[in-house]
Amino acid sequence: MNFILKDENAVFFECGYSCDNEILLCVDAVKYFITDARYYFEAKASVNSDTVVVLAQRYLMSEARALLRKLRPKSLVFNPNELSVSDFKALSRGFSINFKPKPNFSQLKRICKNEKEIEILKEAARLGAKCFDEFAAFVRENGEGMSERELHFNAGLIFRQKNSLNLSFDPIVAINENAAKAHALPTDKILKKGDLLLLDAGVKFERYCSDRTRTACFDENFNFSKEQNFKNAKRQEIYEIVKRAQAAGIAAVKVGAKASDIDAAARKVIADAGYAKDFFHSTGHGVGVDIHELPFIAAKSNEILKEGMVFSVEPGIYLENEFGVRIEDVVVVREDGAEVL
Amino acid sequence: MNFILKDENAVFFECGYSCDNEILLCVDAVKYFITDARYYFEAKASVNSDTVVVLAQRYLMSEARALLRKLRPKSLVFNPNELSVSDFKALSRGFSINFKPKPNFSQLKRICKNEKEIEILKEAARLGAKCFDEFAAFVRENGEGMSERELHFNAGLIFRQKNSLNLSFDPIVAINENAAKAHALPTDKILKKGDLLLLDAGVKFERYCSDRTRTACFDENFNFSKEQNFKNAKRQEIYEIVKRAQAAGIAAVKVGAKASDIDAAARKVIADAGYAKDFFHSTGHGVGVDIHELPFIAAKSNEILKEGMVFSVEPGIYLENEFGVRIEDVVVVREDGAEVL
Repeated sequence: MNFILKDENAVFFECGYSCDNEILLCVDAVKYFITDARYYFEAKASVNSDTVVVLAQRYLMSEARALLRKLRPKSLVFNPNELSVSDFKALSRGFSINFKPKPNFSQLKRICKNEKEIEILKEAARLGAKCFDEFAAFVRENGEGMSERELHFNAGLIFRQKNSLNLSFDPIVAINENAAKAHALPTDKILKKGDLLLLDAGVKFERYCSDRTRTACFDENFNFSKEQNFKNAKRQEIYEIVKRAQAAGIAAVKVGAKASDIDAAARKVIADAGYAKDFFHSTGHGVGVDIHELPFIAAKSNEILKEGMVFSVEPGIYLENEFGVRIEDVVVVREDGAEVL
Repeated sequence: MNFILKDENAVFFECGYSCDNEILLCVDAVKYFITDARYYFEAKASVNSDTVVVLAQRYLMSEARALLRKLRPKSLVFNPNELSVSDFKALSRGFSINFKPKPNFSQLKRICKNEKEIEILKEAARLGAKCFDEFAAFVRENGEGMSERELHFNAGLIFRQKNSLNLSFDPIVAINENAAKAHALPTDKILKKGDLLLLDAGVKFERYCSDRTRTACFDENFNFSKEQNFKNAKRQEIYEIVKRAQAAGIAAVKVGAKASDIDAAARKVIADAGYAKDFFHSTGHGVGVDIHELPFIAAKSNEILKEGMVFSVEPGIYLENEFGVRIEDVVVVREDGAEVL
């Protein structure tokens, strides 16, 4: 398949290197990495051996066009969600090549991870879990009286590990009713003993993401384990429902199941407990070099699970103005079920 | 002019609010802010009074399409650099509206800043300069023996001011020969007495960016003022050339001058000193809600300077494997010349 890509993670996946100004062209199984003078030498030293680095003398799309003119492929696949109207026009106008739009074709290609990728994802998960523990120790020691903003700032420090790790995404740190907001931004709200604290965070290892959420009770034993003891009965009830829902979702994972079955299994536990409308997002998303990739674990997802797919299972219940609970782990699909990373 | 926008900064400029899932449609002088349930209430509370918030029940582009179907404008301007091939197809297919591609029309609209915006940009510059001073004090005290990575990490901490400020961009912190790389990423290189240190950094205030570069000699008097005393004669020579080039660029700024004249004025000083080929980027770029916006201060830029345009003047000389010097300030065009922010 001949194709063109611009997305940094997709390009990295294809050739082992990426920068912030690049196009990857693949024609007749040869990969061409097109970049400018700033990145040329680094690219030459870093791309896989099957990739040719091309130094662009002009706008990258024009360079790609010039290369296509020389290589004359019959067809070229592109991602219409990735190329802008201008990009596509610059690439394609007046050409007799058959340009085939294939939405997210790179993510489709990456949907099953090989064992090497799974090892990297495991290491990312291990490092992420370590940061959860470090942040828990920090909060136990210093959290009382801190604002969400300060907690969020310190979460950023701890998950970055003095810049030796990159974040998968900006961490979500939310207290009580703020945990009920699906896009909680840190506020001036102060952490007090007995509060509920939600943390959703992840790190990258060799470009692959970790992703995890825990909801915990802030007291003298504060930690992010899945065993939590909330003094408030309703919080404990909701917490246990979400925990059971997540376990049910994970238990439903196996080769040949549908992605929608996983969503249904988690959702049923929450619906049976009477909170169907308070779980208003899908159950999970693929995780790899993109923090959100295929497969989507949702009611409408017809994807059939295959060995090596990696995704999050993260049901939640969100009670507006009260509190929210979400529990999330990333799993890999194995022949006989889910392996939690 | 009827138009559609997706870019966060462009949308913020139009209606005083933005989030990460939004479309702004302007038809017959009414602005429609289209977003999903997560942001609906915040948007309603935050947009300017001339803007109507629309809660999307589906994919935002489909919602925009449905709205267009109702409003029936004759034409609609879009930015072909902003909309993807998929976006544009979802918006426009089978429509009799005249869709007009206008590259970067929002940046063109924002090219002259009003006094209120200039005040905000001044405050951003003031805060940015304060962070330069704080970082200088930190480096004076703790810098010796630190790696670029550690210096970069601490620059991030200081410029973020405990999360009360956002960065305009990831700071560049580079020692000696690394300062000669145009996209210097922090390495394990250690800072020693007598080294040259380049810092390029900025912060945002009320969404507007600051941007500044200083190159300094690391000794007991380390600071980021423009008066520097390098022990090494060649460094001092190059430093003085760049300083004169920047002053010449700034001196050329006035209403009615061409952007290319500013570039030429700075470039001439460097070329006359024999370093033409070592100043391989353009002299500056517009600064506003985007860190890089119009006008571009480059040899090929035909833009005529108008009162209220705001841009950087940042010539540099880069000697591969030796060192690099860049000095940058942001200026606003006034009737009688440049005012440095």
